[in-house]
Amino acid sequence: MKRDHLQALLAGVSAGEVGVAEALAALSAPPIGDLPGVQLDLHRQQRTGHAEVVYGEGKDVGQISAILERLRSAGQPGLVTRVDPEKARAVIAALPDVRWHTRARVLELAGPAAERVGCIAVVCAGTSDLPVAEEAAVVAEAVGNRVERITDVGVAGIHRVLAHAPALSRANVIIVVAGMEGALASVVAGLVARPVIAVPTSVGYGAHFGGLAALLGMLNACAAGISVVNIDNGFGAAMQASLINRLAVGAP
Amino acid sequence: MKRDHLQALLAGVSAGEVGVAEALAALSAPPIGDLPGVQLDLHRQQRTGHAEVVYGEGKDVGQISAILERLRSAGQPGLVTRVDPEKARAVIAALPDVRWHTRARVLELAGPAAERVGCIAVVCAGTSDLPVAEEAAVVAEAVGNRVERITDVGVAGIHRVLAHAPALSRANVIIVVAGMEGALASVVAGLVARPVIAVPTSVGYGAHFGGLAALLGMLNACAAGISVVNIDNGFGAAMQASLINRLAVGAP
Amino acid sequence: MKRDHLQALLAGVSAGEVGVAEALAALSAPPIGDLPGVQLDLHRQQRTGHAEVVYGEGKDVGQISAILERLRSAGQPGLVTRVDPEKARAVIAALPDVRWHTRARVLELAGPAAERVGCIAVVCAGTSDLPVAEEAAVVAEAVGNRVERITDVGVAGIHRVLAHAPALSRANVIIVVAGMEGALASVVAGLVARPVIAVPTSVGYGAHFGGLAALLGMLNACAAGISVVNIDNGFGAAMQASLINRLAVGAP
Amino acid sequence: MKRDHLQALLAGVSAGEVGVAEALAALSAPPIGDLPGVQLDLHRQQRTGHAEVVYGEGKDVGQISAILERLRSAGQPGLVTRVDPEKARAVIAALPDVRWHTRARVLELAGPAAERVGCIAVVCAGTSDLPVAEEAAVVAEAVGNRVERITDVGVAGIHRVLAHAPALSRANVIIVVAGMEGALASVVAGLVARPVIAVPTSVGYGAHFGGLAALLGMLNACAAGISVVNIDNGFGAAMQASLINRLAVGAP
Amino acid sequence: MKRDHLQALLAGVSAGEVGVAEALAALSAPPIGDLPGVQLDLHRQQRTGHAEVVYGEGKDVGQISAILERLRSAGQPGLVTRVDPEKARAVIAALPDVRWHTRARVLELAGPAAERVGCIAVVCAGTSDLPVAEEAAVVAEAVGNRVERITDVGVAGIHRVLAHAPALSRANVIIVVAGMEGALASVVAGLVARPVIAVPTSVGYGAHFGGLAALLGMLNACAAGISVVNIDNGFGAAMQASLINRLAVGAP
Amino acid sequence: MKRDHLQALLAGVSAGEVGVAEALAALSAPPIGDLPGVQLDLHRQQRTGHAEVVYGEGKDVGQISAILERLRSAGQPGLVTRVDPEKARAVIAALPDVRWHTRARVLELAGPAAERVGCIAVVCAGTSDLPVAEEAAVVAEAVGNRVERITDVGVAGIHRVLAHAPALSRANVIIVVAGMEGALASVVAGLVARPVIAVPTSVGYGAHFGGLAALLGMLNACAAGISVVNIDNGFGAAMQASLINRLAVGAP
Amino acid sequence: MKRDHLQALLAGVSAGEVGVAEALAALSAPPIGDLPGVQLDLHRQQRTGHAEVVYGEGKDVGQISAILERLRSAGQPGLVTRVDPEKARAVIAALPDVRWHTRARVLELAGPAAERVGCIAVVCAGTSDLPVAEEAAVVAEAVGNRVERITDVGVAGIHRVLAHAPALSRANVIIVVAGMEGALASVVAGLVARPVIAVPTSVGYGAHFGGLAALLGMLNACAAGISVVNIDNGFGAAMQASLINRLAVGAP
Amino acid sequence: MKRDHLQALLAGVSAGEVGVAEALAALSAPPIGDLPGVQLDLHRQQRTGHAEVVYGEGKDVGQISAILERLRSAGQPGLVTRVDPEKARAVIAALPDVRWHTRARVLELAGPAAERVGCIAVVCAGTSDLPVAEEAAVVAEAVGNRVERITDVGVAGIHRVLAHAPALSRANVIIVVAGMEGALASVVAGLVARPVIAVPTSVGYGAHFGGLAALLGMLNACAAGISVVNIDNGFGAAMQASLINRLAVGAP
Repeated sequence: MKRDHLQALLAGVSAGEVGVAEALAALSAPPIGDLPGVQLDLHRQQRTGHAEVVYGEGKDVGQISAILERLRSAGQPGLVTRVDPEKARAVIAALPDVRWHTRARVLELAGPAAERVGCIAVVCAGTSDLPVAEEAAVVAEAVGNRVERITDVGVAGIHRVLAHAPALSRANVIIVVAGMEGALASVVAGLVARPVIAVPTSVGYGAHFGGLAALLGMLNACAAGISVVNIDNGFGAAMQASLINRLAVGAP
Repeated sequence: MKRDHLQALLAGVSAGEVGVAEALAALSAPPIGDLPGVQLDLHRQQRTGHAEVVYGEGKDVGQISAILERLRSAGQPGLVTRVDPEKARAVIAALPDVRWHTRARVLELAGPAAERVGCIAVVCAGTSDLPVAEEAAVVAEAVGNRVERITDVGVAGIHRVLAHAPALSRANVIIVVAGMEGALASVVAGLVARPVIAVPTSVGYGAHFGGLAALLGMLNACAAGISVVNIDNGFGAAMQASLINRLAVGAP
Repeated sequence: MKRDHLQALLAGVSAGEVGVAEALAALSAPPIGDLPGVQLDLHRQQRTGHAEVVYGEGKDVGQISAILERLRSAGQPGLVTRVDPEKARAVIAALPDVRWHTRARVLELAGPAAERVGCIAVVCAGTSDLPVAEEAAVVAEAVGNRVERITDVGVAGIHRVLAHAPALSRANVIIVVAGMEGALASVVAGLVARPVIAVPTSVGYGAHFGGLAALLGMLNACAAGISVVNIDNGFGAAMQASLINRLAVGAP
Repeated sequence: MKRDHLQALLAGVSAGEVGVAEALAALSAPPIGDLPGVQLDLHRQQRTGHAEVVYGEGKDVGQISAILERLRSAGQPGLVTRVDPEKARAVIAALPDVRWHTRARVLELAGPAAERVGCIAVVCAGTSDLPVAEEAAVVAEAVGNRVERITDVGVAGIHRVLAHAPALSRANVIIVVAGMEGALASVVAGLVARPVIAVPTSVGYGAHFGGLAALLGMLNACAAGISVVNIDNGFGAAMQASLINRLAVGAP
Repeated sequence: MKRDHLQALLAGVSAGEVGVAEALAALSAPPIGDLPGVQLDLHRQQRTGHAEVVYGEGKDVGQISAILERLRSAGQPGLVTRVDPEKARAVIAALPDVRWHTRARVLELAGPAAERVGCIAVVCAGTSDLPVAEEAAVVAEAVGNRVERITDVGVAGIHRVLAHAPALSRANVIIVVAGMEGALASVVAGLVARPVIAVPTSVGYGAHFGGLAALLGMLNACAAGISVVNIDNGFGAAMQASLINRLAVGAP
Repeated sequence: MKRDHLQALLAGVSAGEVGVAEALAALSAPPIGDLPGVQLDLHRQQRTGHAEVVYGEGKDVGQISAILERLRSAGQPGLVTRVDPEKARAVIAALPDVRWHTRARVLELAGPAAERVGCIAVVCAGTSDLPVAEEAAVVAEAVGNRVERITDVGVAGIHRVLAHAPALSRANVIIVVAGMEGALASVVAGLVARPVIAVPTSVGYGAHFGGLAALLGMLNACAAGISVVNIDNGFGAAMQASLINRLAVGAP
Repeated sequence: MKRDHLQALLAGVSAGEVGVAEALAALSAPPIGDLPGVQLDLHRQQRTGHAEVVYGEGKDVGQISAILERLRSAGQPGLVTRVDPEKARAVIAALPDVRWHTRARVLELAGPAAERVGCIAVVCAGTSDLPVAEEAAVVAEAVGNRVERITDVGVAGIHRVLAHAPALSRANVIIVVAGMEGALASVVAGLVARPVIAVPTSVGYGAHFGGLAALLGMLNACAAGISVVNIDNGFGAAMQASLINRLAVGAP
Repeated sequence: MKRDHLQALLAGVSAGEVGVAEALAALSAPPIGDLPGVQLDLHRQQRTGHAEVVYGEGKDVGQISAILERLRSAGQPGLVTRVDPEKARAVIAALPDVRWHTRARVLELAGPAAERVGCIAVVCAGTSDLPVAEEAAVVAEAVGNRVERITDVGVAGIHRVLAHAPALSRANVIIVVAGMEGALASVVAGLVARPVIAVPTSVGYGAHFGGLAALLGMLNACAAGISVVNIDNGFGAAMQASLINRLAVGAP
């Protein structure tokens, strides 16, 4: 509860307009959805600027469908990440107005299209990194950002990166998605004056150790202006980038 | 070289105003400083929005002094991080106009004070994390940002964090510095609608493994809107936060 | 053999009431069940306060069924953890009085319901952590404790935790089950004056490394009053909590 | 703020006995000490059952002395762990009523001796583990528990452990401190019906990896009833054991 | 663009033979293939001495087929590594002139046989290492090197290695493929005066940790003249060896 | 070639009884079997006291069958470890005189039963460790040792171990097979004056990390007289134990 | 207590020759030395074939001296490992009949020279491994074994190993001490029919990770007949080898 | 012994020109130097193309001096790496004709300057990497290669690398020395058609883990033509590069 709400509530109590019981309930009742076994955080959008995005892994079709229906009835956006195709088909069979982003593995509640503002560049080192890049791009668009996709620009052919420098400079924030050694983040951050959010991917083998090599590479990047999210976490990069992009365009 | 500069140069050659040799030199000569054994990247400010900040570890007093003099003569800001007290004293003895930020272990070339804009909050979980937090704060101020410091607000007493929610909301971007389990980043990002840059510190012992526990905790934070920099990398967080803060206030 | 038993036995020998051979046998014969390839520790209940709970992974249907029958004939409780559904169905087909706790993946010998005493709170950060939380809750109930389940209260929405503080305070001991960064344990232990047993789960991906991130986070928790069991070890947390809860209510 | 306090406060506002500004302050003002750079959590004792114990590593003599004075003036117990001898001597020079536990490396504010209740056994595998065991014992005593020390009972001579079984059974809770492979925790937990809190120590070399071997051994103990704290964390084990011991004796 | 090309272009502009727009295009247009989602680096052969070899893992049949067709139409060699048998069959069904190297899991565009020069020895410690060794051998042959295969010469029977010393000495460069402890690389490098490229394989179990043991062994080899590539990276060893072999025979 | 053989050969050459070519061949021809892609080390028995035992993982039915036939024709024992049931059935279909040890997953060439000498105890902590223990026992018997199996004697019930002390003392060497924390090795080595070969198993979960916990525990055992083999390496323990047992009984 | 002693004791009680109190004391009183803070295991020699060897690290001069005096008065051998030179000098100043093995860092109580039997070969890969090899050799000699030292025979010059094959074959058991990649163990075990105890050392740098590379290499050795002790654990290898050597010569 | 020497020797024996004893000695006497505790491998140059370079860490001044004198008397080159300044000064005081390369920490026996052939480029990412780069350069020159040093060309300013492309192309082989994320190796290998030997350095902090981040980055480099040596192993890179460079120029 924000301080001004609290002040108003107390003033109401003081003026006799609000009863003690009512005020007590208002101060105690947390804004929590009440699905069985799931506590949706319906006030998160006001509090943190973006609605709760649901992590689909480990949830079954019934849970996902119920959550999406609850969010729809609350008039909130609905996004579920990390949904495998079988689950997606089953959810859509039950809720035909849900959209399936195949490559990104994201389910999205259909709604009036949000206006997309500013610009987030999503840059991707290799074709194998595309699913993670798409997760980032789809989530970023769903929460109201314009996205520019730049794909397959690994550092082994450095001119491929250089050729995209102008496009990179036009974005407010850049998401770099790369597996292998993750060097693309360093090169991009050395080229342009924009915050770079690096997403290491699990693409690699052997001493890649499931993305550890790319993660460590990005954490140790010699260029400044880089921060890093978890391996394969396109969603997290999108949310962080959205907050930055909206700051840049003065969006609320 | 930017595309419009390139076009102008080629037009000059075409018009006979610029000779081939001269154009060739312009296209080939990189903007690199020429200290012995050190190649300063004097154009980095134009390219990436911030001047090169020098990593002091492993450099001796002579190297640090020479770099600072070269930067001064180039009219550029001069910051050196990770300088231990002995080196700092020796550098200042040679260059009295250099300032020593004791706790942050940062040397700074004195110059006309840059105007500080916007707001970056630097939040710190425990007193042992202060040196890293100060590195972040001092660097952020040096490159022109207003900084609000909030210290010693670990999650073991959650009300300490909650009490600072309004101050956190006033910042454009929040740097969270924490060792131990690093849970402060999750709690802060769950409270306010601002990008959070998490800095794990090496404060801890045993199964902390030199900061690994905090790093992994922050990378796996259940709240959205968090990205992470290297362990103890207050400098990196400051540079990333500065880019974001300047976007938010429309600074160039 | 307890000291008073030993003394009694020796006195019997001294008095000629007990023969040397008989005493030798009593001192040598260990209280061990004799299934082929399995040595059930039938005296463990007296010795350590709880009967042997069988770890089901790597045991086949025949072994599990034989163990349960042997325990039933010894008049002991029978619990088998980590049983997958196929095995469970096969065991129940052979032993219809065995109960299958689906989500917890626990098989339980039916018997007269033990009275449940005291209170153990089982708190769970996300829905994906429920199977581990249920293993803890089902085992705790089976060995005679009252359990209060509190689910889906991750720290990203800290008010969800705060809303449950009164319930947490009513328990004698709290089991906190959490994946991701495991920060819930720190927050709970900072709120209430009760021992917290933290169970990291393998819920997460990428730099979670199969539960390592949550494990390290919990081991490095900045709040006091926390101890930790193995990743996904709901059973172990329940046994430890049961010993504590029974101490608290003065149960034998 | 507890619910009944909240209700009383709101009733006061409603009755006009408490002004809005005053109520607002009461709801906003967190119970936090205000040393420069340190926020002491003076209400922690009410909230979590034990006062804040200060982690001494990384704090200088001035900070430690100031904290101890602030705690004394607040009428609270004062304990600082992980203080090296030089710092200890300097603090005592300034604050002569502070006691130095040499082996445990703990500083303690002198005060009226708390009554010690119940029984915590602190068992130690080898002489090299004694500093950690002493940290546990000293802290446990300082917060009001009776402690029984059992030292140098490693499993390589299993009869040394067996000989102490009766003493172990008399304690309400057992702290097992062991380095090397940490097997002592399994053996003790298999012998007696008491919760065991295992403290791995960094005593070892080579593939011990600074305590990792003992930590993993204890987390994977085949006996039930064990939970684990961080490597060398005698303090944490003591706090957890104290909560359990006080539950067992019905202490508040 | 090489410096002489740049000079020629600028001279052309100066002479009026090349228009500004044309020069601008030449300087800006990167030599990048334009398959949807894939940017083939068609100039890599000129730049780095070998054409782009495509990493097949994570690419589907359509992508692989399109890449091979694009490479064929560009008159370039076409190699795809890490193709599983099902994908291979599907590609060949569509492109009958593609050859499938079964054990090496490599697809190769049929073309006029390149002359094979010099000699690369591919030495293999055990039969389980053969797939990696074959990947190295097939790739090395495809890019124009003569290859001598020496198989199953583990160090447990050291005479098996010694017997091949003459053959090893005849090669210009030696690729050693070994799992387990990877000791073969040390022994070979101690025997002959040739650069040894060591390929650790994931063949092993337990404390082999997916190839880590062999990788560390090879990186710490006590013999000089060894360098190492990623676990199971037969392709990488072949490319490095090819560059060396071609230097040795004076091939362009 | 042993020194006396070398002397004899040279004497023969000197005396004209052996031609230069013949001596050259004798000195050069290594005793290596010549299956395609496999170099059997047929002289290993003379050299190291035991024939080559074949590691079955990664070898197909054809390779295994060919190797067994080659060994039979060379009059050598034939053992293949780590064979899964499908492969085993296929090999036996082709070679009916091969025996399949189901639990141990070992194939053995039928032959005249070797006399079994001395005594190796194979001790096993839990039923889940039985496959590894059986691999050790079957291999040890196949190469001519008497084996005593002691199963399911984990340290959580220490009396189960103590009850077997006499049997353990009768063996010349003891193989201890244990997963979880691996503490059984320490306890056994503290009880009896025999060399203990510890085999950590991958039985466990979570922070067991595939056997790492047990491996580290055994390497750090506080008892002397223990050495360790790779995780799940029952075969390796058997071979080492066989060498020791045969030394003890004076077998060649 | 051995079974026959137990039987005799009980017979004495039965015959009235031994009182109950006396028998109870005999059955309860463990054979444990009673230095303050140290429980010497004076019966270990009978039980496990070798007296307790004291681990000197973390013990001060007073503790070491007291232990040695206690062992001398008990008529037992006295060995202390891992003693640094300063401590050694101080101990010798107090106890002039203690001998200091400089390179091995071992203190030894002077006594009548034990007859040395059989043969243990201690083989060492490089000069930097000598301290560990010497610890093994000195301990092995002190407990009554003949030792043959073979030094500096790394695999990079394989002929150095081959030249020592005859000497290796004359030993009953071989201790191989090696850092770097630890390949010497594989080569030696492939040459001779003797049990090999491998001691990885921490000699190396970078990706050696304090001995981890050598440890993993030895655990994954492709030759059979190898077992491994902890990094730098020359003592442990000596104790294991002594048990084997004494079995081989039929020593008690 | 090479095959033709063997044939000649046997022919001599057959012809009666060489006695059996003499041949036996020739076949048995290994070419090993006989310093106490050190076995110099004086034939290594013939066998592997380069003399033994001595690893100085862990050797004392006496050992280093003796080795250098022995090598000088054998007419061999003498190089000792990883010598700290104090040791270096002491060696030079004893052997004034030894040269000390300060930054590279290498001692070199003065001798007639070897002709330097071909070209090895040593490229260095940052000034902190210089000691490792210098070790590589000094060793490469000492064994007869021409070296071109290119320093401080990190990828954060990619134009610094591009500016050196022509120089890189002129070398036969390129050593890339880089800490942090090690991305320089990928960029260089993508630019030029030369084998790249990558040397990760321990320069970095936090999640760099002593060079692990750079090592993993280089092993996972997305560009082909890279192989890697141990962290900080400038010596190893130089030896490998020397073998390649000499192949390229046809040197023996």
